[in-house]
Amino acid sequence: MLDYQAILEEIYSSLKKTEDTGEVASYIPELAKIPKDKLGIHLQLITGEDYAVGDALEKFSIQSISKVFSLSKAFQLVGNKLLTRVDVEPSGNPFNHLSLLELENGIPRNPLINSGAIVVADILLSNLKNPKEDFLNFVRELAHDDSINFNVKVAESERETGFNNYAAANLLKSFGNLQNDVDDVLDFYFHQCSIMMNCKQLTNAFFVYANKGKCLKNVLHLTPSQVKRINAIMLTCGFYDEAGEFAFEVGLPGKSGVGGGIVALLPHCFTIATWAPALNPQGNSYLGMQALEQFTTKTKLSIF
Amino acid sequence: MLDYQAILEEIYSSLKKTEDTGEVASYIPELAKIPKDKLGIHLQLITGEDYAVGDALEKFSIQSISKVFSLSKAFQLVGNKLLTRVDVEPSGNPFNHLSLLELENGIPRNPLINSGAIVVADILLSNLKNPKEDFLNFVRELAHDDSINFNVKVAESERETGFNNYAAANLLKSFGNLQNDVDDVLDFYFHQCSIMMNCKQLTNAFFVYANKGKCLKNVLHLTPSQVKRINAIMLTCGFYDEAGEFAFEVGLPGKSGVGGGIVALLPHCFTIATWAPALNPQGNSYLGMQALEQFTTKTKLSIF
Amino acid sequence: MLDYQAILEEIYSSLKKTEDTGEVASYIPELAKIPKDKLGIHLQLITGEDYAVGDALEKFSIQSISKVFSLSKAFQLVGNKLLTRVDVEPSGNPFNHLSLLELENGIPRNPLINSGAIVVADILLSNLKNPKEDFLNFVRELAHDDSINFNVKVAESERETGFNNYAAANLLKSFGNLQNDVDDVLDFYFHQCSIMMNCKQLTNAFFVYANKGKCLKNVLHLTPSQVKRINAIMLTCGFYDEAGEFAFEVGLPGKSGVGGGIVALLPHCFTIATWAPALNPQGNSYLGMQALEQFTTKTKLSIF
Amino acid sequence: MLDYQAILEEIYSSLKKTEDTGEVASYIPELAKIPKDKLGIHLQLITGEDYAVGDALEKFSIQSISKVFSLSKAFQLVGNKLLTRVDVEPSGNPFNHLSLLELENGIPRNPLINSGAIVVADILLSNLKNPKEDFLNFVRELAHDDSINFNVKVAESERETGFNNYAAANLLKSFGNLQNDVDDVLDFYFHQCSIMMNCKQLTNAFFVYANKGKCLKNVLHLTPSQVKRINAIMLTCGFYDEAGEFAFEVGLPGKSGVGGGIVALLPHCFTIATWAPALNPQGNSYLGMQALEQFTTKTKLSIF
Repeated sequence: MLDYQAILEEIYSSLKKTEDTGEVASYIPELAKIPKDKLGIHLQLITGEDYAVGDALEKFSIQSISKVFSLSKAFQLVGNKLLTRVDVEPSGNPFNHLSLLELENGIPRNPLINSGAIVVADILLSNLKNPKEDFLNFVRELAHDDSINFNVKVAESERETGFNNYAAANLLKSFGNLQNDVDDVLDFYFHQCSIMMNCKQLTNAFFVYANKGKCLKNVLHLTPSQVKRINAIMLTCGFYDEAGEFAFEVGLPGKSGVGGGIVALLPHCFTIATWAPALNPQGNSYLGMQALEQFTTKTKLSIF
Repeated sequence: MLDYQAILEEIYSSLKKTEDTGEVASYIPELAKIPKDKLGIHLQLITGEDYAVGDALEKFSIQSISKVFSLSKAFQLVGNKLLTRVDVEPSGNPFNHLSLLELENGIPRNPLINSGAIVVADILLSNLKNPKEDFLNFVRELAHDDSINFNVKVAESERETGFNNYAAANLLKSFGNLQNDVDDVLDFYFHQCSIMMNCKQLTNAFFVYANKGKCLKNVLHLTPSQVKRINAIMLTCGFYDEAGEFAFEVGLPGKSGVGGGIVALLPHCFTIATWAPALNPQGNSYLGMQALEQFTTKTKLSIF
Repeated sequence: MLDYQAILEEIYSSLKKTEDTGEVASYIPELAKIPKDKLGIHLQLITGEDYAVGDALEKFSIQSISKVFSLSKAFQLVGNKLLTRVDVEPSGNPFNHLSLLELENGIPRNPLINSGAIVVADILLSNLKNPKEDFLNFVRELAHDDSINFNVKVAESERETGFNNYAAANLLKSFGNLQNDVDDVLDFYFHQCSIMMNCKQLTNAFFVYANKGKCLKNVLHLTPSQVKRINAIMLTCGFYDEAGEFAFEVGLPGKSGVGGGIVALLPHCFTIATWAPALNPQGNSYLGMQALEQFTTKTKLSIF
Repeated sequence: MLDYQAILEEIYSSLKKTEDTGEVASYIPELAKIPKDKLGIHLQLITGEDYAVGDALEKFSIQSISKVFSLSKAFQLVGNKLLTRVDVEPSGNPFNHLSLLELENGIPRNPLINSGAIVVADILLSNLKNPKEDFLNFVRELAHDDSINFNVKVAESERETGFNNYAAANLLKSFGNLQNDVDDVLDFYFHQCSIMMNCKQLTNAFFVYANKGKCLKNVLHLTPSQVKRINAIMLTCGFYDEAGEFAFEVGLPGKSGVGGGIVALLPHCFTIATWAPALNPQGNSYLGMQALEQFTTKTKLSIF
């Protein structure tokens, strides 16, 4: 039997000695203020035990990790009809993400790139009564934690500087793949990205993806088939242009955010979340990627 | 000596017999209302004589033709400094115009594609006291006609549906190549495009480009060097992805607009404007292109 | 306990009733001769049992499936040094595969697209004494079957019509990412693709990828870490531009070939091979894809 | 009346003082041997007078300048049927020239980029009895000089290193836009590029393009309409991705080659050729571009 606590501590102390060459995301001013030396890891086994090191209880902006939640909610609401408006293929190149959208007539490559997540946000806006509240409640239910909330300052900060997202949303609109107003969709989108959670809350919320759709309290939120598909999308598309690299080195479905968080999971086995704010050039947490690589190497646990 | 009136009439009657397979631009609702059977041609010689057929005195929305005026005004105001923010190369492919902008880090290919014209609009906004008024006055002066005006309905119509331009402007902003607010720049841009002019007014206003910078009343508005350069840009970039085709078949610097207008000129010789609202698949006036092709074939007048 | 034989037979009879809208690959003349109505499935459990239906013992051209073998051999020979010459990211778009190669300075996206496999072939050519023989022996050893051989006619047929591969190889050469002569590399490559195997032989040969590197006879051919990584590459890149779709619908690492074969596997559990020559528009076997989708749906076995 | 000799001498001495930051083309080994300090200019007026400075009588490899001759010969042979196999639009980006070819299904953007010139070479191969001889004779006739010849060493040097051209030709072949064997077409192409001429011979040979199709000896080689169109293609496509820049700064139809030569012309007025082997990053002669810019600035002669 593996001593998970010892493994997490080994990883933690090894990373604390590593020079962190990453950079905290600066394009969202509110995020740029986070100290670079934060590091937390939380592990939740399917059997109930959990383990933590470092800043695992400190909340941070989950950013793109929220795309997994919005995708899940959209699957709940409209099922596979979702796939008429967004594809499920890896996007390949980040350096021309609008190019791809343009070449492919406004159908985003997958729901985990920004343009895809904006389409998903549009679907939620069309199908939820009180979109922001309802979505927040969905995340709270998954994590069993009503303290989870938006960070309005971060949402506002992103609204003021998110020109690239405005470009994507307008391009989607020009192709007829956005039903609501650009401003409304992006207001929702910036709020979903601003949600603050800590590593523990993330492993709790992601429990459904490791447990055939049932949360920690054994309530079914998603069908096993939906979970399987969301996991597949995370594996092939969850890490921008490092998706292949992450599958290659780590071998787990997962999702990263520019707030420095990463969540990953092994179906039927565990969920794990890391937080370290400085990002590598591909936009994924520099130390978080290493933590997960070390974890799967030490435990020999991966889907492959 | 050529009998220009006879030539214009020949062209007119030949085109009236041609089946017009083009389509009136439908993406700007206000433009979609224009009857398809309008056809006007106006020719202005450098020596002063002018000739007309058909609907040469009926005003229409000049749309992208306005980009030549805004480029000229920007050259007046900031000179070659303009070239640090927009290139002068043909754009090649229209099917991925945002792609190119993205690949080239927010520097538009040339000032006659939308993204380039939006950068030029931004420059005018930063350098004119009363941007819309001052720009309108510039066009009025070139054409010696104070009746020229914006069509606010068209501008409004474009503001409501111009998602692709909002996408371009936001992408430019994300690359730091827009100084003013996206909404302000596009408000100016949609107004400049909405200007209403007839063929005669266009040949008058373009007289400066055929006459080394001097207008019909012999006032110098642009230097000979600026005129040479604007003509070069028109020749290589004035017809979207038909620029090469137009140079090949017609052989004159010129500019088209989705309102169905085309203006072209032979330096030291003449300016000519055509108007026929239905567009070919490349977005240029279907009959206008043919009128100019016939004109240069019959007169053997071209820059080549 | 699942009745695998019954499941395979159900799938077989359901597919036999399906109209096969696919088309046999026509660009390699020798392949175009294969009758469209062939259909075989073979399943090999990690525990030793195996099951078959239809034409599971009829040999066909494995084509791109060979890329998994060549990648494995290259990993054996040069280890991770391979990664300096070929990346491991999904390629995204198939419609412009040379474009990507050009934009990324001659480093292919991954070893399972043609350009990547050509680089791998170049590595084998540089590191094997008798490249073709040695490679064939490697495949024979994996499958424990010395009857496996090249189909020289198919190799020749591809040599005469494989202009796109010549284009890719020359482009690689122009970027300095090919050490041997273009003709020599492609001769090897066309031979590797021409290997004839049946479904049973393929499930045998792929046993190593389900069994931590050990073959059916318990000999270690690849390290567990290499196997994990090859599986990751298969999952993210094994089905051209349907990689995401396959992960989404099927959820297994696998590889398809234009000869109509597909092999897939669940680590620690089974390998499965299907053969049906007609291809869908993405170049994957039309019925084979459905067979695997049905198989994972019926058995609920997938990595996710 | 302009003192052309004085103007050429002024330009020559000014350029001799300029630091030449260009680099001699190194990818064709034979060209890399040419001394960087060569500089020649030759001017031929339509009225018969001619003027020269520097190394105007020293032969060099005309390289891509030969594409104008092959295009002309193809126009003679097949007329506008040529346009079904190659377009006449500027190519825009050089960094992905195969990409464009791929995206546009094997129809090169224009006959002056490599892929387009390879298609033109294929047409000549299909339509000339003794392709290499007949083509050489055509160039000799245009220039009235039988001493003009191939440089077999340069052709051979290019054959051995021209992988990018092999890539382009094979890609064309894969799209069905090449009728002859790749090797035969490229053998012809490398020979046409290897032709040695000096500045004087080039201005003589280009006389037809300034004189409505009639050569210096008043023989009609091309129709006025063909000449007009070839000039249009030179203006919009003659300088790789500097075509717009050249039109903007110089304002003449022309063509450059990586051997360091440039020829340009003003219809009904003059032809001018420059030679300076070091190239700017866009692949055009660094000093040659400046020489022509100075020439049109000093003489105020341009098509605009």
